[in-house]
Formats: sequence, structure tokens, C-alpha cells
Amino acid sequence: MDSIKVFSPGSITNLSCGYDILGLCLQNRGDEITVSKTNKKGIIIKSVEGYHLTKDINKNVAGIAAQALLKNINVNYGFEIEIKKGIKPGSGIGSSAASSAGTVFAINQLLDSPFSHLDLIKSSMEGERFVSGSYHADNVAPIIIGGITLVRSIESIDVIKLPSPKSLEVIIVRPNIEIKTSDSRKVVKKKVKIEKMVQQSANLGSFISSLYTEDFDLMSKSVVDEIIEPDRSMLIPEFDNIKKISKYSGAIAVGISGSGPSIFSLSNNSSTSNKILDNITSHFEKLNIDYDGFVSKINTTGIKILETK
Amino acid sequence: MDSIKVFSPGSITNLSCGYDILGLCLQNRGDEITVSKTNKKGIIIKSVEGYHLTKDINKNVAGIAAQALLKNINVNYGFEIEIKKGIKPGSGIGSSAASSAGTVFAINQLLDSPFSHLDLIKSSMEGERFVSGSYHADNVAPIIIGGITLVRSIESIDVIKLPSPKSLEVIIVRPNIEIKTSDSRKVVKKKVKIEKMVQQSANLGSFISSLYTEDFDLMSKSVVDEIIEPDRSMLIPEFDNIKKISKYSGAIAVGISGSGPSIFSLSNNSSTSNKILDNITSHFEKLNIDYDGFVSKINTTGIKILETK
Repeated sequence: MDSIKVFSPGSITNLSCGYDILGLCLQNRGDEITVSKTNKKGIIIKSVEGYHLTKDINKNVAGIAAQALLKNINVNYGFEIEIKKGIKPGSGIGSSAASSAGTVFAINQLLDSPFSHLDLIKSSMEGERFVSGSYHADNVAPIIIGGITLVRSIESIDVIKLPSPKSLEVIIVRPNIEIKTSDSRKVVKKKVKIEKMVQQSANLGSFISSLYTEDFDLMSKSVVDEIIEPDRSMLIPEFDNIKKISKYSGAIAVGISGSGPSIFSLSNNSSTSNKILDNITSHFEKLNIDYDGFVSKINTTGIKILETK
Repeated sequence: MDSIKVFSPGSITNLSCGYDILGLCLQNRGDEITVSKTNKKGIIIKSVEGYHLTKDINKNVAGIAAQALLKNINVNYGFEIEIKKGIKPGSGIGSSAASSAGTVFAINQLLDSPFSHLDLIKSSMEGERFVSGSYHADNVAPIIIGGITLVRSIESIDVIKLPSPKSLEVIIVRPNIEIKTSDSRKVVKKKVKIEKMVQQSANLGSFISSLYTEDFDLMSKSVVDEIIEPDRSMLIPEFDNIKKISKYSGAIAVGISGSGPSIFSLSNNSSTSNKILDNITSHFEKLNIDYDGFVSKINTTGIKILETK
């Protein structure tokens, strides 16, 4: 195989109750990444389409992740990367993770898969650190493994794939503003009251239980964030109203996707999902706020190979 | 029915990763509580055997919980309570919870069960508040519902019964000192660093996943406490050594039971459980430290009716 094209999907993290540890892989929206072998050693980013991003391999997450991966192996050829961004940077649905993880996934395929999922997560995290200032695997893990994931540890890279209830759908709406992950992380308080920690842990625990038992009432009570959301939501226009509209339209839960500004809602049937999307987007239209919105099933397999040559 | 005798078991809480929210019902050790109807209205604690505790219904948790329950109903007779304590107060395996929950459970039976499990938990929590200074349901929930429980909310009293892996066993060893729950709560820091919260939540989430999947390796990595244990363990003689001995003997995990001084270990087979108990108790004997120790299966049904008249 000399060349491979993959679809590297978007992802939602935190899911309100699992700050920095929960992630969910989306079916819609993603980057298309083509990696081809070159005779000359080294990595080149040949093109970036869709959004304006640097081709410098030391400043583009795809280049950073690829270099981190290739540190661990001797190869007598090089790689050329072409990126078609389908996810807007700074939108809160894992734009950088899609580029990092998609690239290392593709390179691993060209190398005949010497690396494990955990190796790919580890390399991708170098890209995440570059854009956010700290290591985290909550976006890259669900893209590489698929489904809903819990990152137990980033030191020993321990990731658990949780069950994805078949009927569960996600509604994503993004008001068209950009929030940098690094800025959004700054509003997070450094310390938390023990009572708040207990409440947040209880919600996370209940959410995980609800995935195993498909108890959507419990899920609704659990996907709640009293620690991060109150501060971060102030950066997102109309957040409180959108939340009300979505809940009123039948959403199981509503929250900030990653560090925002995308807002996610959960639903367990398609007609409710469409109603939620319609009602939120009408609200944005009424206020003349530019937006992007879509409904997605949970992508249980992660990055997909589109073409190989 | 004029009289009922119940066995109200001990319980382990926190389980390292779920401070104030996780609880596990034990099969061994518990209080025997007899409640009989009396012609005269009101509640009397007729006797307390086993340990010296007050019979004042406003100072003994059994009386406090019973009064809280009976506030919600009109009865034209009274109740006489006899308590045989099988759990030492201040031992960290839910002595007060056993008395509170056992009493309200028994009274509910005599009344022909007008109250739900949640009502019983709510009344029992009044006893818990009296001894510890704050409401918590982590001990009373598993005794009343059985098995391993997660308290999602004490405001709306929302309790989830988690799965109990069949082979899971608990080894309890208690050095013979008393720690008051209220004192042990004082050493808990009021605020937690967000990174520590994230790590602790990840462990709780993984533990809950491990109960559903019976993944004992994951359980071993998850039943860890970097927040409360470092401070509380200083109150318990030989804690660090006991932990090492237990792990070395094959324990899945080791931690402080409730607010201590009891130490719990988890194991998934009986011969390992006995080896753990033997090795820990030999250590205490060598150091001339008085102790109590036993192995218990998980009690999935909770409080048990022994006799009715």
C-alpha cells in the first residue's frame, strides 16, 4: 500500500459529567486525510483545504503527531499528508484530534500496523498538547477506538470502551464563533469544593451505569455539570436559552461539547433529534446568529478507511 | 404481626474511589434488632446489648430514625426497640447505619410496608446526620437495597443498585481503636485540585464499568484514592503495611472502610481471601495489636427478617 485516504470523525468530550475523561465519536463531520509514501525520508504536509491552517509540520498537529509516532520506528521512506478539514478549528468537536489521530492512523496502516491503538493515542496526544497546553486523550481515544470512551489514565494510557446504546443520537449546534481550547481551559477553576466533587462523581458514575442499563431517565439526571459549565457557558452566546429549547424539545440532556462553542444534546429517537435541531436552529435564525447544526448517531468504529492504493 | 426481629448488616463505604457515594452491603457482622408493638403510643428503646450506647430516643440513632419515619404516618400504638449490637460503634463498617436502617425497616414491616425503600433511606439518614454531622446515604442505601449502591443524589434520594460480581469477596480487618466519623470527616480537605478530581472521577467511572464487565484487573487499577486516603490513613495504625501485605497476598484492592479504622480488601476467590486475612492478622498479632477480622461475600439482599410473631 502506497497511499491511504481516511475519514477521521469529530468527537464530543466531557459530556457534562466527565471533564477531561469522557469522549464520544461522531458519525458526521470529520476530516479527510490522505497519506502517501514518498521516496524522500521525513514528513511533509502537502496541502490543507477547508480552513486556513499552517503546513509547518512543527506547528500543525498532524505533523506533530506524525513525528511523535515515527520517533519509535526506523523507516527508509517518507510521508506526504493531504488534509481536507471538515471540522472547523476551535469548534469544540475535536478538530485537532481528528487531524492528529487520522494522520497517525493512516501512517500506521501504510507501515502495516506495527502500532497499537494505545500507541496511536499516545502520539495523537502530542498534537493535543500543542494546541491546548496539556496532554489529554478524551478526543483522540473515541476517534481511534470508536464509541464512547473513558480515559482512566493518561500516564499509563488506560482507556475503557463503554457501551453505546443503539438508539442514542447526538444533536450538535455551533454558533459561529471560535473559542480556543487553551482560552476555554483558562476559565476552569483550579480547585473544586469537595461537595461539588462528590456530586460530579456521582453524576459520572450514574451516567456510566445508564450506558450499561440503557436507562435514559437516569442518563438525563446524570449528564449535568455544576463545576465547569457555569463558567464556560458564559463564553457561548444564547447557551442558557438553547439549553431550555433543547430540553423542552425532548432532549435527554444538553451541555457544552468539549470546550465549546458547540452545544450537544442527547436524544434516543430520530424524530426528537430532528425536532431539537429544528427548534434550536430556528432560534439562531430569529436572532440572526450564524450557526452549523447536525444530527449524528454514535460512531462505534471510529476512523474509517475510504481508499487505498 | 406484633413483633419482628431483623438482622441489619454492616456495610463498607467509599471503596476508595467513591467518597460519600459508593456503598457495599456485608453478609457477616450486623445488629439484631427486635421491634414490638406496644399499646402506649411513642417509641421506647428497651435495651441495647453488646456495646454501651444510650437508650435515649433522641440520642440513639435507632430512636432518631424511627421518629423521622413515624412523623409521616398516624399510628394508634407504639414501638419498643431491642438492639443487640453486632457492630462496634466507630469501626467504619456502618454501625449507626445498621441500627437506624434496621429499626425503620422493622417498623415498616410492622406497619404492613406503607413506606418505600427511599422513604426508609431518608429516615435512616436522620440518624446518620446525628452521628456524623451531615446527611449521607452511602451506608444506609446498600443495607436497605442490598449489594453495591451508588448514591447519585441525597437531595432527591436517587440510588442506583450496581451489579455485584458473584465471585467478589471482601476482607475486613479492624485494629481495635475507635475513630468517630465526625472526627474522621474533619481531616478531609475542603477543596480539591481539579486534576485530582479528574483522576478520582476516572477511577470511579472505571470501577463502575468493572462491576458490569467483571474486569478485575480494571477494578484493581480503579479502587484507588489519592484524595481522602492520604490524610485519613494516618489515623489508622499500620495502614501502609497492611496495604502492602494485602496486595502481596493477592488482593484486588485495599483501602479504608468508611471513615476507618476498618481496612477492606477485595478478592475474587475464597482461598485468596483467607490468605489475605491470615497474613494481615498474623502481622497484627506479631505487633500485639488487638484486632477483629473476617471475610464476607457481598450481601445482595440487605436487611433480613429473622423472626416474626
